[in-house]
Amino acid sequence: MRRLAILGSTGSIGRQALDVVRAFPDLFQVVALAAGQNVELLASQVREFHPWFISHTAEEASPAVTKCPRLSLEEMACHMEIDLVVIAAAGGAGLVPTLAAVRAGKRVALANKESLVTAGDIIMAEARRTGAEIMPVDSEHSAIWQCLRGESQPSARLVLTASGGPFRKSSLDELDSVTPEQALRHPSWQMGRKVTIDSATLMNKGLEVIEAHWLFGMPFEDIRIIVHPQSIVHSMVEFADGSVKAQMSNPDMRFPIQYALCYPERLPNPSLPALDWSTIKELTFEAPNFDLFPCLKLAIEAGKRGGTYPAVLCAADEVAVELFLSRRIKFTDIFRLVEAILSEHRATTHPAIEEIIAADAWARERAAAIAAEGSLC
Amino acid sequence: MRRLAILGSTGSIGRQALDVVRAFPDLFQVVALAAGQNVELLASQVREFHPWFISHTAEEASPAVTKCPRLSLEEMACHMEIDLVVIAAAGGAGLVPTLAAVRAGKRVALANKESLVTAGDIIMAEARRTGAEIMPVDSEHSAIWQCLRGESQPSARLVLTASGGPFRKSSLDELDSVTPEQALRHPSWQMGRKVTIDSATLMNKGLEVIEAHWLFGMPFEDIRIIVHPQSIVHSMVEFADGSVKAQMSNPDMRFPIQYALCYPERLPNPSLPALDWSTIKELTFEAPNFDLFPCLKLAIEAGKRGGTYPAVLCAADEVAVELFLSRRIKFTDIFRLVEAILSEHRATTHPAIEEIIAADAWARERAAAIAAEGSLC
Repeated sequence: MRRLAILGSTGSIGRQALDVVRAFPDLFQVVALAAGQNVELLASQVREFHPWFISHTAEEASPAVTKCPRLSLEEMACHMEIDLVVIAAAGGAGLVPTLAAVRAGKRVALANKESLVTAGDIIMAEARRTGAEIMPVDSEHSAIWQCLRGESQPSARLVLTASGGPFRKSSLDELDSVTPEQALRHPSWQMGRKVTIDSATLMNKGLEVIEAHWLFGMPFEDIRIIVHPQSIVHSMVEFADGSVKAQMSNPDMRFPIQYALCYPERLPNPSLPALDWSTIKELTFEAPNFDLFPCLKLAIEAGKRGGTYPAVLCAADEVAVELFLSRRIKFTDIFRLVEAILSEHRATTHPAIEEIIAADAWARERAAAIAAEGSLC
Repeated sequence: MRRLAILGSTGSIGRQALDVVRAFPDLFQVVALAAGQNVELLASQVREFHPWFISHTAEEASPAVTKCPRLSLEEMACHMEIDLVVIAAAGGAGLVPTLAAVRAGKRVALANKESLVTAGDIIMAEARRTGAEIMPVDSEHSAIWQCLRGESQPSARLVLTASGGPFRKSSLDELDSVTPEQALRHPSWQMGRKVTIDSATLMNKGLEVIEAHWLFGMPFEDIRIIVHPQSIVHSMVEFADGSVKAQMSNPDMRFPIQYALCYPERLPNPSLPALDWSTIKELTFEAPNFDLFPCLKLAIEAGKRGGTYPAVLCAADEVAVELFLSRRIKFTDIFRLVEAILSEHRATTHPAIEEIIAADAWARERAAAIAAEGSLC
């Protein structure tokens, strides 16, 4: 039995992780569940999975929830009763528990991008020190991880695929008037709201480049992005000999979640939609449009500059996406706001974790302030 | 230094294997070269690579060739001075040396399809007994081998890709009047004449299904064929969890040859044409047309029936292709001739190697006789 903690159990990844657990009741025991405010869903998960510990941020909850001992995310991530920590918490909230799990030498199924984006060098160094295994859950990084399996040499190049989002064929003018409803309608993936908006701006792909840089020790110049609207090829690895491996599946996050949870085993799961080659007529590829999606370049540049820039990037983007979803800024303001804050930022090189957290807090404040001034319009 | 024997050094695969050797002069020593009648090219290879032993079937040869000690293919394949035997000999001639190399526990880079197609159970059983490593050189099987690398469980399904050959969009009527020149014009691969014609009839893909069956221990019903005209995806593996891996490269046989010769290392070779994703707009897939290419089904059926049927299939096809190339039968007669001989054949189940060789000889005789009668037209 693998004893799991799922941090972010009521979010999109958390719910799908529990779906995988349901498919293999003899393989997993859910020891801890952490949610945010959604205590109703948490209560139903507690009734179904009987965790020993829970975490949530709500002030009130039903008896099912309140009778279960509470831990902080950090305590949960390094608890001795837990083998495998699923970090499905969104945004900056993932950093501290990820680091705690890695420091405790746990196996970590990592769905939270921000922790590696903002503190990749610290987390990877800690993982090397403790032997913690970081298993990516993002479909792109899972694909690369699968393609690297059994290879004895580092890869020569990574090719991250991007669906291109819902506005791949839009004009700059059209992007100006995009509504949250339009941006939330992703053409191929069902995901949480934040990552869906980040996919529409392609900020998400920029964050993934930074994540891949840390996870696979790959220089930025050897990570390419290619737009692949069908979202069947999840990413590719080019090896030193010029051979390329690609990993494919239908776009369903339960594939990479299951791979991480069951690794190194590959188990049949009839509820996952297998690829049907009789229906796949073509896989298409095109270059990303950096002019239409300036967040992509902005993110990669922040990654290359390093220091506290990626933390500021993530925090500012988190605020900007929220502001867009609550209709307080335009879709195209997401870039403007994040860029403005990055250009204000005085970065620390080789920051300690506290400095990263401080940069995150500063960026959130500045983003809120700039938006309140209304100076973006 | 890996000490190589290249059996079939003047053929398409043999010449490309020597190209790979040229790229890594510190890695390989060419100890033995075997050719057929092309002693002129053999002489030039002898002058360049200074093998210790040679083999050829010509009656006369230049001093460069004649002064080099001669061995039979079988002696060469199991010679104690040789680590890695490249079986690039075409057709039925590959069987005996392949078996000799496997019995001697050598590493075998196998480009000859017929040996596994006709005697797969014997060869694989011997390889298990001696620990001989069989490394496929066919691009499809190399792709599968690469995708299986590091995987701890057997795959669930293999998907062999096929270019579809030059007549993918032809009608049955058009196929009737195909000339050797047309059939030799393969749209994506540069290969030897026999395999190019087999690719045009799709017999080649049928043989590859049988080869994959033996090499990877995969039931016939779990091997699928999909037509992929760009020949970029060389084959795919579907795992138990529904995840699919594909291996890709430009269609150049030096990729799989180098992979087999250098395995497990992947070495940079600037003379190989790397994939350029900025030029790849689409990868397309379609179902194979079994009506237009009846050889495909014929081969798979012979593989399923087993015994001496695959040996008869291969031998009859070898004769039929020769007859077509010398304009003595029509393109569509290749199927008719092979089918006629298979239907005449009284197969032996679990044949010994001598029975396989006898079935091969019988089929060649019958093919020549039927063709001489002119009863196909």
